[in-house]
Amino acid sequence: MSEDDRIYTACVLVIGNEILSGRTKDANIGWLAEKLTAAGIRLREARVIADVEDEIVRVVNELRAKYDYVFTTGGIGPTHDDITADCVARAFGVELVEDPEAIRRLLKNYADPKDLNAARRRMARIPVGGIMIDNPVSAAPGFQIGNVYVMAGVPRIMQAMFDGIRGRLKGGKPMLSRTLSVELPEGKMAEGLGALQNRYADLEIGSYPFFRLGKPGSAIVIRGTDKARLDTAIGELAEMMRGLGGNPVEDA
Amino acid sequence: MSEDDRIYTACVLVIGNEILSGRTKDANIGWLAEKLTAAGIRLREARVIADVEDEIVRVVNELRAKYDYVFTTGGIGPTHDDITADCVARAFGVELVEDPEAIRRLLKNYADPKDLNAARRRMARIPVGGIMIDNPVSAAPGFQIGNVYVMAGVPRIMQAMFDGIRGRLKGGKPMLSRTLSVELPEGKMAEGLGALQNRYADLEIGSYPFFRLGKPGSAIVIRGTDKARLDTAIGELAEMMRGLGGNPVEDA
Repeated sequence: MSEDDRIYTACVLVIGNEILSGRTKDANIGWLAEKLTAAGIRLREARVIADVEDEIVRVVNELRAKYDYVFTTGGIGPTHDDITADCVARAFGVELVEDPEAIRRLLKNYADPKDLNAARRRMARIPVGGIMIDNPVSAAPGFQIGNVYVMAGVPRIMQAMFDGIRGRLKGGKPMLSRTLSVELPEGKMAEGLGALQNRYADLEIGSYPFFRLGKPGSAIVIRGTDKARLDTAIGELAEMMRGLGGNPVEDA
Repeated sequence: MSEDDRIYTACVLVIGNEILSGRTKDANIGWLAEKLTAAGIRLREARVIADVEDEIVRVVNELRAKYDYVFTTGGIGPTHDDITADCVARAFGVELVEDPEAIRRLLKNYADPKDLNAARRRMARIPVGGIMIDNPVSAAPGFQIGNVYVMAGVPRIMQAMFDGIRGRLKGGKPMLSRTLSVELPEGKMAEGLGALQNRYADLEIGSYPFFRLGKPGSAIVIRGTDKARLDTAIGELAEMMRGLGGNPVEDA
């Protein structure tokens, strides 16, 4: 088996009371889902948990044992509710120490060195054995330790951090995807779709209903890593849709 | 202790490959977070998992033991990838049986009784011991069994379902929240915020940075169930902000 055939899995762990209270709407899960899929990494799970130390430690340890990659967002700022770095260090059983390069970067970011107060210095701490993740937006770095990637919660910063580490991440064969939309309710196609899924157990067939101008329609997504199989299945799907009086259109 | 003093907890469980692939952006977690918070129910966790039977069964059992309420979204349509009802029945160790009232509702929804084919009849199945959740949008019901509420994934349908069950849900004291925004970076206030949090351990103080017209600002959210304590803490927070040269503004 070549290395390509390995499947790489991931989980996104969103840490923050503001998401669970509804005050802030998470945008990181969806963004990372797209990027990971494009990188040949399968996002298997996403979780949102509160700013509770024991819970974060427990969940980080659970997830890093289960998936190839864990990406956390949130909780790495300068205030008392920013406890992600402390929790990840505790999960790995290592010290959290001030990183001289991180201090240099923070200093460069402030007009007056005195602005780097004790609270802001906390943002320069990295667990022993971890390496920095660059923050081109506001200097304070994230970090990687083992298979855990700790990033900011602010989407603009998180996205810049992820773009910086993207090159380090190993992925498997990219998941290919084709979608046919049709003005047929999914209930009409359900039997045919089930049969198609049975014939193509190596592909993943999803059915997503929608309404357009008051008419029910369905988007059928077929995903898999083998282009030839995917194309054949899409051909059979289009035929099935036409047989039911539909006019399938491929989504871009 | 009056019943009011009990804390009611909840988890939202989003089931669907389309969220994890990035094809569909979840909107249900944020919407439910707001509604649950308003209902005096604490959303402690949200999870997104794939359409994998064993995984769904395991997670439903984990979460229903841990929280007062579990709200699932997704996977209750007519196609082969709609396996939530089967999984929830398996998690509870009960049969999934066709509900005559659900069949009546589905029949009323189709022009021709023949349109209620075998695939669509699957949507009328409810686990033994469960009760229906009305679907005023497209007839096919959700259901409640024990502390698990199974709802559709399409936001418009999920929202209508939740509005219908809202009256059945018991909540505790509502979580009150006040927010002061100020044109000060959170790093400048961090020490004061930490001290404030220490003095008000019964309140939850969150700090959320933002940029407005290129200037760094912070929204400080204080939450708690005791209005008098919350108001006093907000007063102290405003004073602290003014002491640092800020001009705090209360968010609506």
